Amino acid sequence: MSDHELKQVIEAADRAITEEDFDGLMEFYAEDATLVVRPGLYATGKEQIRKACEAIATHFKNQLKVRQGRMQVIEGGDTALVIMETILETGERESPIVRRATYVFRKSDSGRWLCAVDNSYGTSLLDE
Amino acid sequence: MSDHELKQVIEAADRAITEEDFDGLMEFYAEDATLVVRPGLYATGKEQIRKACEAIATHFKNQLKVRQGRMQVIEGGDTALVIMETILETGERESPIVRRATYVFRKSDSGRWLCAVDNSYGTSLLDE
Repeated sequence: MSDHELKQVIEAADRAITEEDFDGLMEFYAEDATLVVRPGLYATGKEQIRKACEAIATHFKNQLKVRQGRMQVIEGGDTALVIMETILETGERESPIVRRATYVFRKSDSGRWLCAVDNSYGTSLLDE
Repeated sequence: MSDHELKQVIEAADRAITEEDFDGLMEFYAEDATLVVRPGLYATGKEQIRKACEAIATHFKNQLKVRQGRMQVIEGGDTALVIMETILETGERESPIVRRATYVFRKSDSGRWLCAVDNSYGTSLLDE
């Protein structure tokens, strides 16, 4: 399922993060989506998510680049679970940070996929 | 978030699996839900899911017992991503199989949570 339409959607969102196009980035989220900023800290709704994304960009001194590796998409009930390697280059470290992320998308009434849960920490949240 | 209402929902589904109450078990799924039977093999819709659950019960010689360990729930956009330890006792092995599962639930119009994606393999699907 690596050629799923969500691959293009996620790649476009990654470009928006790398270019710090936060207006564009917010278009990918459902109104009441939740972003896991870090284990134990969640941002819900576009306003909180945007602030968190801006803070993350500042934290990484505007050097953050995001890209995706292997992916699996499981669709069911107008939602999709995406299991994906997320590769973060921060400029601070020589080797990138690689996480196994879990994203939930839901299909809007217009047929567009919107991100409802953005959890780049995947199942490692259980280590908390 | 371990006291989330979904904890009771999932515990009730686990009881249905252990008791082989497949009629009851199907009540937990959305009509067009997807179950990851094993990496690479998906069952979609209640008819396929029921057949897969019956085959799994037979495979484990009707000795399968399912229970859950630690859990995290992330709600967003009328959906919830559940990250959970799933503990399978099969009767064949002395020690249980422990997986880190990822489940997606969506809230129905009546306010009930229904399982849309049932992936007990979590991010290990990327090892495929």
